Amino acid sequence: MKIDGKHYRSIELNENGWSVRIFDQRKLPWELVFVELTSRDQAATAIREMWTRGAPLLAATGAYGLCLALRADPSDENLKRSYDLLLATRPTAVNLRWALDEVMNAVKNLPADKRAAAAYVRTGEICDEDVEINRNIGLNGLPIIRDFAKKNPGRPVNILTHCNAGWLATVDYGTITSPIYMAHDEGIPVHVWVDETRPRNQGASLTAFELAQHGVPHTVIADNAGGLLMQRGQVDLCIVGTDRVVRNGDVCNKIGTYLKALAAYDNNIPFYIALPYPTIDYTLEKGEDIPIEERSAEEVTHIEGQNQAGKIEKIKITQSPAANPAFDITPARYVTGYITERGLLDHIPERVTPQAKKAV
Amino acid sequence: MKIDGKHYRSIELNENGWSVRIFDQRKLPWELVFVELTSRDQAATAIREMWTRGAPLLAATGAYGLCLALRADPSDENLKRSYDLLLATRPTAVNLRWALDEVMNAVKNLPADKRAAAAYVRTGEICDEDVEINRNIGLNGLPIIRDFAKKNPGRPVNILTHCNAGWLATVDYGTITSPIYMAHDEGIPVHVWVDETRPRNQGASLTAFELAQHGVPHTVIADNAGGLLMQRGQVDLCIVGTDRVVRNGDVCNKIGTYLKALAAYDNNIPFYIALPYPTIDYTLEKGEDIPIEERSAEEVTHIEGQNQAGKIEKIKITQSPAANPAFDITPARYVTGYITERGLLDHIPERVTPQAKKAV
Repeated sequence: MKIDGKHYRSIELNENGWSVRIFDQRKLPWELVFVELTSRDQAATAIREMWTRGAPLLAATGAYGLCLALRADPSDENLKRSYDLLLATRPTAVNLRWALDEVMNAVKNLPADKRAAAAYVRTGEICDEDVEINRNIGLNGLPIIRDFAKKNPGRPVNILTHCNAGWLATVDYGTITSPIYMAHDEGIPVHVWVDETRPRNQGASLTAFELAQHGVPHTVIADNAGGLLMQRGQVDLCIVGTDRVVRNGDVCNKIGTYLKALAAYDNNIPFYIALPYPTIDYTLEKGEDIPIEERSAEEVTHIEGQNQAGKIEKIKITQSPAANPAFDITPARYVTGYITERGLLDHIPERVTPQAKKAV
Repeated sequence: MKIDGKHYRSIELNENGWSVRIFDQRKLPWELVFVELTSRDQAATAIREMWTRGAPLLAATGAYGLCLALRADPSDENLKRSYDLLLATRPTAVNLRWALDEVMNAVKNLPADKRAAAAYVRTGEICDEDVEINRNIGLNGLPIIRDFAKKNPGRPVNILTHCNAGWLATVDYGTITSPIYMAHDEGIPVHVWVDETRPRNQGASLTAFELAQHGVPHTVIADNAGGLLMQRGQVDLCIVGTDRVVRNGDVCNKIGTYLKALAAYDNNIPFYIALPYPTIDYTLEKGEDIPIEERSAEEVTHIEGQNQAGKIEKIKITQSPAANPAFDITPARYVTGYITERGLLDHIPERVTPQAKKAV
């Protein structure tokens, strides 16, 4: 999407055809720093130290890391070592492993001098596929926003969102932001209520930053405020992302999502989940089965921002002990629909296995 | 209640019998600063610049301001001027006006040399009455906590609260904290989940501070976390305060209260309102009639805390526009009961007017 009027992807090949441009997202929203990755080790550092974030973007960064490794040394030995090194940057990141496997499979049977080129081709495809998934999520969500615009001509469609599932976490478009950007770009007036999303404030920093850069009107609110806005009729619909949806349709997402789903339900406001299909976890039956990550209490007791001198500073905001569960579960009964790249679904369909397909 | 093991009221006469001791609450929780008020103008400054806060405490501070004025000059002219000056510090504070009227009525027909003593007597009564109201709220709420302790012997009663309606806002006990302190003091194990209460963080600063000082186990959480804790069975009951309850029982309280009420209802957890009877506004029928104060966006975009050098510093946490509605409405259908100084009520009774009383 756009920054200062110019279109960017969150990760892109430079014009030289081999080095890779990302943003240092640790500095957002205060500073936009472009970083040129020229080596495998730099790509590994970018992943490990969270210059980039978001499952699809980490996957693309890892894949480009393997490209850079093969460009420097296409030997079997370096291929294996670089694969291991990049995978170890975030051992639990499923998408990263998938992308590294894809590149590995594309190059391992090739002669050394063909490997780098083939790796760049496959990585380019991985990026394009991610863009295509998110573009299709946008296309499938767009009619919902169009309908609200038609019902209430002359006033903006008010959308509430939580956390950041925007283009900064993907290669482009984002999940929840994709239909919003598309609506905005076709001239539908939209306004986004951005939950600040304590304790890490991804809404107030990342979502607000990317909406501002792309020119989408928005207002940051305390996470507490959404209920009142819904009571007052100031929210037309909610769209949130998800880390995992299970078979019965229960949704695991950033802590606080459940409270907004309850308020939407109480006020008869549609509540949508935007997700790429691979986010569905068919191995789990219901929300209670999902383990909830407990993160550092310091994320609650301390907060980072810009001080009066313009420098980034971390301050302490309470002296008491704190708890910090990172996700909650929104029961499927509060979900109006699932906006996926395959269409808008009102429930999670049974997985069609190859065996089941044959039987049909 | 206690600070460092010693009992204090939020406002007290010093041993000299005329000057008044308060805390400078602007410095909490970082620093406990006692202030001695020795003049009317100092009392006015304490109110105007928010060294004190909370309706009952402001009322007591204003009344003592009038005492200090009359001690210096008991003339009719100074009585009138001091009343006006103190009232103007917070023109919309209903309790403050009430307390100033009480003192005015107690002294205005007395000879000048009797006025100061009479003012101190009436102000002392006003303070004692406030303590008595909150003590009775505690006594009427205590059986609820006792019941949970009996049902689950051997584990603490987990109470979730929002914002600060603690003893720092009253002369002693507080409203929501009163039954909690009483339970703790009689040896019932209690643990309080303290919502940080964005954007002004009264939970993380004031409620957490006073619970810590009195020795009540507690944990600060992001406002987003309460829903998950309820889903997991980690909350036995919720108790919150209120700024105004209207005739149908709808509750106006700090923004975010409604979301917790929804989660409590969804998880079958009792949700109580603790309030002094005068908080009931019989002039309004339902929650929608209550005007909602919109406060400065800076409370959302900036936050104050302690920097690494130990100094209080305000930092900016978003660059986007922000909205800051201060209260929301919890519909009566989500309220389990109202804990008042007159008893535990399951609805707001019709007002018994003097006429109605006669008819009975």
